Amino acid sequence: MERLERPSKGMINIHPIQRGGILTEEARKLLLEWGDGYSLCDLCFEGRVDLIDNPPVKKFKEEVAEFLGMDDVRFTAGARHAKFVAMSGFRGAVVLDSLAHYTSYIAAELNNLKVYEVPNTGYPEFRIEAERYAETFERVKEEIGEWPSLALLTHADYRYGNITEARKVAKICEEYGIPLILNAAYTSGLMEVKGDEIGCEFIVASGHKSWAATAPIGILATSFELAEEVFRTSEVRGTWSGRAFTKKEVTLFGCSPVYGLPLITLMASFPRVKERVKRWSKEVEKARWFVREMEKIEGVQLLGERPKNHTLMNFETASFNAIAKRHRRRGYFLYHELKERGIFGVHPGMTRNVKINIYGLSWNEVEVVANAFKDIAEKYGLEVED
Amino acid sequence: MERLERPSKGMINIHPIQRGGILTEEARKLLLEWGDGYSLCDLCFEGRVDLIDNPPVKKFKEEVAEFLGMDDVRFTAGARHAKFVAMSGFRGAVVLDSLAHYTSYIAAELNNLKVYEVPNTGYPEFRIEAERYAETFERVKEEIGEWPSLALLTHADYRYGNITEARKVAKICEEYGIPLILNAAYTSGLMEVKGDEIGCEFIVASGHKSWAATAPIGILATSFELAEEVFRTSEVRGTWSGRAFTKKEVTLFGCSPVYGLPLITLMASFPRVKERVKRWSKEVEKARWFVREMEKIEGVQLLGERPKNHTLMNFETASFNAIAKRHRRRGYFLYHELKERGIFGVHPGMTRNVKINIYGLSWNEVEVVANAFKDIAEKYGLEVED
Repeated sequence: MERLERPSKGMINIHPIQRGGILTEEARKLLLEWGDGYSLCDLCFEGRVDLIDNPPVKKFKEEVAEFLGMDDVRFTAGARHAKFVAMSGFRGAVVLDSLAHYTSYIAAELNNLKVYEVPNTGYPEFRIEAERYAETFERVKEEIGEWPSLALLTHADYRYGNITEARKVAKICEEYGIPLILNAAYTSGLMEVKGDEIGCEFIVASGHKSWAATAPIGILATSFELAEEVFRTSEVRGTWSGRAFTKKEVTLFGCSPVYGLPLITLMASFPRVKERVKRWSKEVEKARWFVREMEKIEGVQLLGERPKNHTLMNFETASFNAIAKRHRRRGYFLYHELKERGIFGVHPGMTRNVKINIYGLSWNEVEVVANAFKDIAEKYGLEVED
Repeated sequence: MERLERPSKGMINIHPIQRGGILTEEARKLLLEWGDGYSLCDLCFEGRVDLIDNPPVKKFKEEVAEFLGMDDVRFTAGARHAKFVAMSGFRGAVVLDSLAHYTSYIAAELNNLKVYEVPNTGYPEFRIEAERYAETFERVKEEIGEWPSLALLTHADYRYGNITEARKVAKICEEYGIPLILNAAYTSGLMEVKGDEIGCEFIVASGHKSWAATAPIGILATSFELAEEVFRTSEVRGTWSGRAFTKKEVTLFGCSPVYGLPLITLMASFPRVKERVKRWSKEVEKARWFVREMEKIEGVQLLGERPKNHTLMNFETASFNAIAKRHRRRGYFLYHELKERGIFGVHPGMTRNVKINIYGLSWNEVEVVANAFKDIAEKYGLEVED
């Protein structure tokens, strides 16, 4: 096999899902030391990775629970696995927002839950309004004769980077007595997310998406009561041998498969993650500046809520799309023009919309990116305001 | 958080689960470049990591299928996830060997399959005899009135490192029309395992255990027919939005969470893995020599099959256990004595048995390990043959 080079090497990567997963120096330094297979497992004497004392995984788990304002935490093979685990404690119907990540729908499907969607407000803001949760609960009750057993809210969605009103939704769920999963894959680790303040029963977070860890690692945080349900321990018993595995947690495949780099890099990055969430408003400031610059380009318009509250953004770029129609390289021209300017991560071939994330870029880099778009616009004859 | 040091750094690590997961130089070189979050995903244009063309994941997938003598392959969050996926296509009862890894039992439990065990021959060899599969099938039929829908055989077990007669078991399963999962977590990647020669319906392998990859990554290989069943695609549809995800595979959480180091290191190590399986007999030769040396120590006896066919071995060490009883550090003395001699990986506190793996050690290192045990034995007054 040829050398496996990373095409984005040395470039500014603005791909929506990459910014929050870039390793901290502290994590990067451990890659060589802990890279082998399941390097943590020769330090495991309790039969579960989350119970290891040295390195202090068990203590770390408690720190993460505290950081998230929840009682108990497990690490999972990504946020998708965390949602599967959370939903495993429920039957019937789940209500989720219509901007939910596909893995939320799939987690429901894998648990045989029927899915009902909370509508969004549509073009151009695509807001999820908290009140629509109550309406959807009522609609489910009417349709199937029982209340949904569970709700899910995507804290910040992957399409527009809208931040939803988690507290309001949690309040409504509380009134209906329906537990709420907050999918914070795009928020926790970037901004502060506290379950006790929000009032949700589960928080799902993503280590590789937003906590500066290697993939795959997710986090599922919940209350003590629900922990017993969703982290249920094994009850199987060998018919001949009598073997039993009473410490192993079934939905985590016994012991969660994060044993090695995913967990150790999550731990190594955690002190910086705790710091960086306090600087979220600075990131939003950069994002709002960036929106203003982008909208100086003829035919470019932000989609999603205004003002912008997240660094993930989606622009409608009709003018770039018009250029693509007459360009030799069609929709790929934008990808190549940006790449020539040292910028990676827009979807190749896509010019109707541009979805990017500027999280963690320096002011200088944000300017480089904005200027690149303006420069390309001017090159192809689009008006750009001063 | 304090610096997260790996305690085994610089030592010979003989922990049973670590040897096959030590990264190749080719994989190690990619750690820094691909360490960030899900670094592979900005190269994904089909919505599934196994369909990426560049780096050539899709081609790699085909190469792995060929290497395993099977039709189709998916990468999973470890062998435990692979077993969950394979079993998802079945209902009723599964028959497995009584030396199966706990994750085989848990995968069955998570799929609501009833587990029946094939007995082993007990002390001291603990063999799984192929014929006992037929007996167990009959017993299940008698007890629950129907045949088991599935069987699982652990190719090499984690307790004794016995190699089971996969072909014979597959033959019996074929006669009964019961599909067979071969759990090759401790064999494939170390020795050649070919599904078409064995006649099994599934092969489960472990990247971090035996294919020199970072954790977690498993492999599930199967036939085209069964692939459709166990890699079933999503059928959920948004009630309001109409959204659907028809390319996403449900039991893989939509897209398998291996997107980054696990998959890229698996790919990088693959050329060497293909080579090294051809040298398995050399490894077994070292293991047999090691057994002879260990058994020169008074009160030390190999458990499991003779002659040894695997590098994972379990010694009954009654004499070390007797020392532990009078030692100030109790059972921990052996761990510390070995550590002082630069050897890591025996279970701290455990002296009744010593379970180790010498896979991939040089002859010189194997000698160092054998001499360390003999040296410790002599230090505490045990007889050691010349």
